[in-house]
Amino acid sequence: MRSDNRAADESRPIRIEFDAQPHADGSVLMTMGGTQVLCGVSIEAGVPPFLRDTGRGWITAEYSMLPCATHSRGRREAVTGRSGRTYEIQRLIGRSLRMMVDLQDLGETTLRVDCDVINADGGTRCASITGAALALRLALGRMTAGAALPPILPVAAISVGIVDGEVLLDLDYAEDSRAEVDANFVMAGDGRWIEMQCTAEGRPMQPELFGRMTDLAGKGIKELLKLWDTD
Amino acid sequence: MRSDNRAADESRPIRIEFDAQPHADGSVLMTMGGTQVLCGVSIEAGVPPFLRDTGRGWITAEYSMLPCATHSRGRREAVTGRSGRTYEIQRLIGRSLRMMVDLQDLGETTLRVDCDVINADGGTRCASITGAALALRLALGRMTAGAALPPILPVAAISVGIVDGEVLLDLDYAEDSRAEVDANFVMAGDGRWIEMQCTAEGRPMQPELFGRMTDLAGKGIKELLKLWDTD
Amino acid sequence: MRSDNRAADESRPIRIEFDAQPHADGSVLMTMGGTQVLCGVSIEAGVPPFLRDTGRGWITAEYSMLPCATHSRGRREAVTGRSGRTYEIQRLIGRSLRMMVDLQDLGETTLRVDCDVINADGGTRCASITGAALALRLALGRMTAGAALPPILPVAAISVGIVDGEVLLDLDYAEDSRAEVDANFVMAGDGRWIEMQCTAEGRPMQPELFGRMTDLAGKGIKELLKLWDTD
Amino acid sequence: MRSDNRAADESRPIRIEFDAQPHADGSVLMTMGGTQVLCGVSIEAGVPPFLRDTGRGWITAEYSMLPCATHSRGRREAVTGRSGRTYEIQRLIGRSLRMMVDLQDLGETTLRVDCDVINADGGTRCASITGAALALRLALGRMTAGAALPPILPVAAISVGIVDGEVLLDLDYAEDSRAEVDANFVMAGDGRWIEMQCTAEGRPMQPELFGRMTDLAGKGIKELLKLWDTD
Amino acid sequence: MRSDNRAADESRPIRIEFDAQPHADGSVLMTMGGTQVLCGVSIEAGVPPFLRDTGRGWITAEYSMLPCATHSRGRREAVTGRSGRTYEIQRLIGRSLRMMVDLQDLGETTLRVDCDVINADGGTRCASITGAALALRLALGRMTAGAALPPILPVAAISVGIVDGEVLLDLDYAEDSRAEVDANFVMAGDGRWIEMQCTAEGRPMQPELFGRMTDLAGKGIKELLKLWDTD
Amino acid sequence: MRSDNRAADESRPIRIEFDAQPHADGSVLMTMGGTQVLCGVSIEAGVPPFLRDTGRGWITAEYSMLPCATHSRGRREAVTGRSGRTYEIQRLIGRSLRMMVDLQDLGETTLRVDCDVINADGGTRCASITGAALALRLALGRMTAGAALPPILPVAAISVGIVDGEVLLDLDYAEDSRAEVDANFVMAGDGRWIEMQCTAEGRPMQPELFGRMTDLAGKGIKELLKLWDTD
Repeated sequence: MRSDNRAADESRPIRIEFDAQPHADGSVLMTMGGTQVLCGVSIEAGVPPFLRDTGRGWITAEYSMLPCATHSRGRREAVTGRSGRTYEIQRLIGRSLRMMVDLQDLGETTLRVDCDVINADGGTRCASITGAALALRLALGRMTAGAALPPILPVAAISVGIVDGEVLLDLDYAEDSRAEVDANFVMAGDGRWIEMQCTAEGRPMQPELFGRMTDLAGKGIKELLKLWDTD
Repeated sequence: MRSDNRAADESRPIRIEFDAQPHADGSVLMTMGGTQVLCGVSIEAGVPPFLRDTGRGWITAEYSMLPCATHSRGRREAVTGRSGRTYEIQRLIGRSLRMMVDLQDLGETTLRVDCDVINADGGTRCASITGAALALRLALGRMTAGAALPPILPVAAISVGIVDGEVLLDLDYAEDSRAEVDANFVMAGDGRWIEMQCTAEGRPMQPELFGRMTDLAGKGIKELLKLWDTD
Repeated sequence: MRSDNRAADESRPIRIEFDAQPHADGSVLMTMGGTQVLCGVSIEAGVPPFLRDTGRGWITAEYSMLPCATHSRGRREAVTGRSGRTYEIQRLIGRSLRMMVDLQDLGETTLRVDCDVINADGGTRCASITGAALALRLALGRMTAGAALPPILPVAAISVGIVDGEVLLDLDYAEDSRAEVDANFVMAGDGRWIEMQCTAEGRPMQPELFGRMTDLAGKGIKELLKLWDTD
Repeated sequence: MRSDNRAADESRPIRIEFDAQPHADGSVLMTMGGTQVLCGVSIEAGVPPFLRDTGRGWITAEYSMLPCATHSRGRREAVTGRSGRTYEIQRLIGRSLRMMVDLQDLGETTLRVDCDVINADGGTRCASITGAALALRLALGRMTAGAALPPILPVAAISVGIVDGEVLLDLDYAEDSRAEVDANFVMAGDGRWIEMQCTAEGRPMQPELFGRMTDLAGKGIKELLKLWDTD
Repeated sequence: MRSDNRAADESRPIRIEFDAQPHADGSVLMTMGGTQVLCGVSIEAGVPPFLRDTGRGWITAEYSMLPCATHSRGRREAVTGRSGRTYEIQRLIGRSLRMMVDLQDLGETTLRVDCDVINADGGTRCASITGAALALRLALGRMTAGAALPPILPVAAISVGIVDGEVLLDLDYAEDSRAEVDANFVMAGDGRWIEMQCTAEGRPMQPELFGRMTDLAGKGIKELLKLWDTD
Repeated sequence: MRSDNRAADESRPIRIEFDAQPHADGSVLMTMGGTQVLCGVSIEAGVPPFLRDTGRGWITAEYSMLPCATHSRGRREAVTGRSGRTYEIQRLIGRSLRMMVDLQDLGETTLRVDCDVINADGGTRCASITGAALALRLALGRMTAGAALPPILPVAAISVGIVDGEVLLDLDYAEDSRAEVDANFVMAGDGRWIEMQCTAEGRPMQPELFGRMTDLAGKGIKELLKLWDTD
């Protein structure tokens, strides 16, 4: 039995608070069950060196956990330097968000996305992507104030795992800790895939299970994408 | 005229949310006007090397700003390393909180306090101290569950500044940016001083103004200390 | 047309040189087309702190590129620190190799795998996994000299991508640079999956293409696993 | 009884050696009892980014202790990185010295002050400020050779503390180690305050003691400011 | 008796593989007995700041050991930072190679040399210099394709040591570990010296032995310089 | 003509101030012409890991320049990290000083030597060795107070160079900057060599000049060794 009597294909309750950081150009406090991520977007003139004079913009992300977000306190990366896990996650977030717009439409502007996990209960990278996509939409609207908004592709993400042989949607921390397979899916609003990452833990995975995982992820993300209708 | 029609000796509205980080041993989301600080406390067995085998405990603090807390995005200290300002502030917070209990009463335990500024509108170091003191009380209560709580000295802090020749209590960011003198005061619940830091900006300060600053700070901190009666 | 007239489902020629680093406990110089990786394994007594006193061993990997491995010289990570890409790759290698043995069979021993790319022409992370698995088998044989070898699961990896709408096996650098979808697959000797990572580049991927990619990867890895018969 | 039979309101003997570092643009070896600080000033064209194109100059300070300056050898900050204490002190020195001139009078020039403690016996931050102010005057004289010197405000600093309930001027290391209150004062030549920092150690401070500390500090600094008459 | 029955004045067998790293502008895999170094040269437009607008070029070197090159695995400098030994060696390599051409002949171009030790069995710094000089000749030939090659001075290096009172040429690791004196010599093709470094280990050296060491080094380097005739 | 009318084989005036850093276990302020180095020795219980349980001691050195020691201010290594030059020099100092005593005589004790250059006018590494050897003798005397002092080998160092074709002893900065050959010699009190480092600058060196350099160095060091008779 899952906590809160969730069904295997049921995701946790979601809450969105827009503009939780008024100094950002767009921000969202994303709550998904016990996981809470603050997503802030900053619009900066200019692009990294490899894009200069191309007329194209850039979207990049940074991810961090507050020390008290986890069961046992994590050390600050200001002291330890960034971990491999942090790098892996912020690269995933950045790649996913860059699918949202044609970078040509941004001109030589950088959209910098900060995802800071305030409370962690599983699925923080997926909550970061889902929340940051909404914050990015806010910032894009302000950036182009008065002008036509460029086409924006909604994006959302969810985790799927196999626990005790059963495929479950949106794992919390307790489930994630004993999962045999751990996967993260990122999908665009039109049903195409942006990223599929599936990792066996402990022992390799039977090929036939992957289809069921994909189906569940698709179902879960489609619900998340309804958040895009609110505004 | 101050924003929100505040009087010179009036501090900004305060809101306290307890246990904003459920994984911490005590936490407070401290809001003071537009400034918001998340204060989390972790209880850790053991003490730093210089206290080993003394039977005494330790209280220490770390302070950080989320990148989107400020008007223009700040770079992460995971990238830049900690700034001098950060070191200065977290040392002040740590010193102030160590006055709250007799460290002998803690045994060889470390109370680690994390102050993360979510939104910055002036007075973040003072809001950190005031909020962290309340979070620390929560943690101390849980640490000694069932046993008698050691005596705890309430602590709170507030800023005072001189703007256009006038002494003002609890400066917001706009006032702080053009202050001629900037001071921070930390006081214990019994009216004794813990820390007084007064810095002239732009030009030195007439000696006679210091008394008025001290009075205003005392008045402001006494109001803050009423937060200790709520629980 | 692919370079060297390769068919879409054809991988590049492979060459294995065992014991290329005689001081290592097992080493392989893995050549796959123009990509060359030196894989060395060191057996070390003891395990990282989180495994102490569990009786279990550990397998971990480090990955690096020599500066002259690439078209334009890369800066040394001794100067720049490790990049996010490096962290991501060495975590993937480590996770994949840990599937090869039951860590309980190692006792409290660490097998440390170094993958140094001497020449890079696409697919370096997959060549690292395939080569390192063979080097690890060498080291395991020496570690248990005289005793029964614990069961070892062969592991190999290959990349698949979509270029100009066509699904291609084992991309070289030129193909990889203009791929629309880039995927890496790691499989065990018994056909079960260890890791599947599929990333859309430029635009999201139609769901129906994933099956074809998986088939090609499976075919390619099965050929690579024949390397395990040589010794 | 204080060492050397000093009275409570008596500071330690002072010695100034000008131009102790001939390659600097102005330097002073400041000796105050057993504390010795080498203060060197370098004039550099240009200013930090935040001042460019403002026509204003900048004064900044760096502070360090030689490893053998203290009772037990300190580790080099080239190895450990700067400590929080170092940051706090060099920020205090920089702020204090910037009060000496109207930065507009410097043009876009940076005066960089290095304070290196050769021997530490308490009061090193105050000796640094007092010595550096004299070195800065030397450098300003050379910078404007032939032209009119801009108005320079003399600056000096001294420590005051409470030991065994008694207010003492200019603490040495032995006194500082057991002080209940530790304060540092920086004053301008015209008697206005630049910085007042008062920290309770061990237990909070009775408010009425602060006046006596301020008086002693004022008396001590006025004696130090006589050093400005020597040249 | 030396291993492989080498005479005291006999160096180890040498093998050169040109263009071992095809992406480099010139590269050599240098094998000298059990020591193997990969030397790659990159031609880069521009020079370091101190040479800008002088019309002169620059040659610089970086040196590193792969972790598995040594008997017991070495930690990566991406983790530990460069060691003093590494700095010392790469400065020696750079100084030696800069003697090969008149830097004026390069224009404002930098030749960056990477020496990566794949297997270490003594004499890695000398093998690096000898191999890098050959790689540099390759790169210079390509840099000036079609134009006249500037005059190039051949350069090579060898170690000499005193073991059990006997002067030996080209020490391997076992000999080097117990040498009483350890020396490295770098010579130009015309017999002039570029660098002589002689270090006593354990106890100081009798002055009269230095002549014998110099003679042996000269003999050894002259044989190495025959490598310059092959191409 | 050399500055101060020095003859080619004449070294600069020397001054020694013992116990310039009273908190050190032995210290010397070494002045050699315009070069001034503060050498402090600290006695520490224990040895580095590679010597534990061998019963042998260790001598090691750290070298640094104060920012204002040079004509144009040098950046602090607390900011930049240590340079290759610093590593090279402190390794040379450490190796040289370790020849002074039989490390077996120290027991498991570390003598840590700090050489801080206060003013630099050429020859700082040689002045560091010469001064540190004297400071080390002081510390050794105190370490073994009451017991018999172990045999100590006096050590000193001097530079020799070739300027405009002429061999000169003890180069100052102006000479050093335009030397064709730059050499440093370290000798023991009994005339045996400890280290000989000879580097061609600009163009290789004729072999016959080395003898003359060695003679001059020997003459210069013998004069320096007279400093050992003073105490």
